[in-house]
Amino acid sequence: MAITTAPDPAFRERVRASFAQQSIMATLGVLCERIEAGECDLAFARRDDLLQQHGFVHAGVLATVLDSACGYAAASLMPADSGVLSIEFHTHLLSPAAGERFVARAKVVRAGRSISVVRAEAYAQDAGAEKLVAIMTATIMTVRDGVQG
Amino acid sequence: MAITTAPDPAFRERVRASFAQQSIMATLGVLCERIEAGECDLAFARRDDLLQQHGFVHAGVLATVLDSACGYAAASLMPADSGVLSIEFHTHLLSPAAGERFVARAKVVRAGRSISVVRAEAYAQDAGAEKLVAIMTATIMTVRDGVQG
Amino acid sequence: MAITTAPDPAFRERVRASFAQQSIMATLGVLCERIEAGECDLAFARRDDLLQQHGFVHAGVLATVLDSACGYAAASLMPADSGVLSIEFHTHLLSPAAGERFVARAKVVRAGRSISVVRAEAYAQDAGAEKLVAIMTATIMTVRDGVQG
Amino acid sequence: MAITTAPDPAFRERVRASFAQQSIMATLGVLCERIEAGECDLAFARRDDLLQQHGFVHAGVLATVLDSACGYAAASLMPADSGVLSIEFHTHLLSPAAGERFVARAKVVRAGRSISVVRAEAYAQDAGAEKLVAIMTATIMTVRDGVQG
Repeated sequence: MAITTAPDPAFRERVRASFAQQSIMATLGVLCERIEAGECDLAFARRDDLLQQHGFVHAGVLATVLDSACGYAAASLMPADSGVLSIEFHTHLLSPAAGERFVARAKVVRAGRSISVVRAEAYAQDAGAEKLVAIMTATIMTVRDGVQG
Repeated sequence: MAITTAPDPAFRERVRASFAQQSIMATLGVLCERIEAGECDLAFARRDDLLQQHGFVHAGVLATVLDSACGYAAASLMPADSGVLSIEFHTHLLSPAAGERFVARAKVVRAGRSISVVRAEAYAQDAGAEKLVAIMTATIMTVRDGVQG
Repeated sequence: MAITTAPDPAFRERVRASFAQQSIMATLGVLCERIEAGECDLAFARRDDLLQQHGFVHAGVLATVLDSACGYAAASLMPADSGVLSIEFHTHLLSPAAGERFVARAKVVRAGRSISVVRAEAYAQDAGAEKLVAIMTATIMTVRDGVQG
Repeated sequence: MAITTAPDPAFRERVRASFAQQSIMATLGVLCERIEAGECDLAFARRDDLLQQHGFVHAGVLATVLDSACGYAAASLMPADSGVLSIEFHTHLLSPAAGERFVARAKVVRAGRSISVVRAEAYAQDAGAEKLVAIMTATIMTVRDGVQG
């Protein structure tokens, strides 16, 4: 399902400005690698302070980055004066999150006036190869004031 | 569905030792408040570096803490030599995560030999009151070597 | 989280009229056992034509009934002129659906103006006892014209 | 993620034999259109007795067919003496299920020894065109005796 036009031509600047306000992204060391109409890629490096008990990156860290990628993929297709709010997200952990770097790639499946559905994948990158480690499906709501109806 | 007996009498020490190895918990300032057979409560304080773009705690931070609470609730009912791995978790965000402190309370719904299902709630605490802000359902797998089958 | 007042005093009649229009409910033999403010119970008997390959009731049949129960639990708290639409639902299968009769019990967790979140449980009943076999969490949207925004 | 080899060369016959035992498939008029290694397509025609209150096919009917498609996609990659059991499935409803015919297409994302993850899409077909109406992600367990561990 190709979605190629964004109603707000300044969507990249709007998304990047919102991303810069998410303090948790800086805390986790996440960068916005790419933002296109209906798509968003976020990436971060493995760090010793982001792990679970087996030494892999905690699934919640992946979910945090996947959720933001889903929200911004949806936001890219929204009007200039709107914001996004996650209603729900679901993550499947497919392989232990081992690797030097991780990238979350989100793509809108349904872009609605009030409800968007987004799918995302998280890949672990290591020595030039990448491996799928988690997937997410998220429901994102368009909001005008940051509060869910 | 009351689950009151844990096969490993030392489950509290086992869970707390594993929790101490999750470096992300220290990074987010999470404490293990309570661990009983089939139940686990984790809590953390709001911090300026854990937020999304509207100034609320990021949904992924809640999911991280809810997921660990679910995993340890399941772990409390497992044999001494086992570990836990999240297969999938699903979070619904019910209200903006505003508050001074947050607590995630998880309770096992199904304790299986290899597959457990856990439900959890996250509450925002403020001025002595608490409000439900998110819920999770998670599937947790019993593992012997930290790797999913 | 107790929700005890419905804005539409005729919610029971409204829900039962809508239920009667769901032809799949008659096809599966489902009855509306109970409708209260924020709660709905639906029940059906095991039949040989509702099964999966191991002879248990198919998980999708349970999901169908759980979804309708969630929708009507949410509908009970909505204004008189509104309808409901499921945005997403998630089912965990906890035990094989063996039994003579099944009941789905749904209860609203969050009743919003446009978005409601509902949890439900499905129990198998056999010889006077009942066993939890599946749980659902669903997001239900309030609509005015039957079409999602 | 391309998965092209099935360990059981007779997987098509095995899947079709199991499908024939799912009585609910006959009840709903579902046909197995295609079974390949890691993929399964199931289809059915709209009928007046499969609807919800707005006259669209009930979301639970879509979920039933999507779940079976996911299960058989996973089953195609399993050993000859194994069976499948759904642990959980999650459905997003993207558009009203209007159309003359519906097809569910499932594809394995992760094929594990005991746990597989499958994604599926449901399309409504009408007058030669098709439209995406629902998506599913499901976790399927390999079983030897039809009972979850």
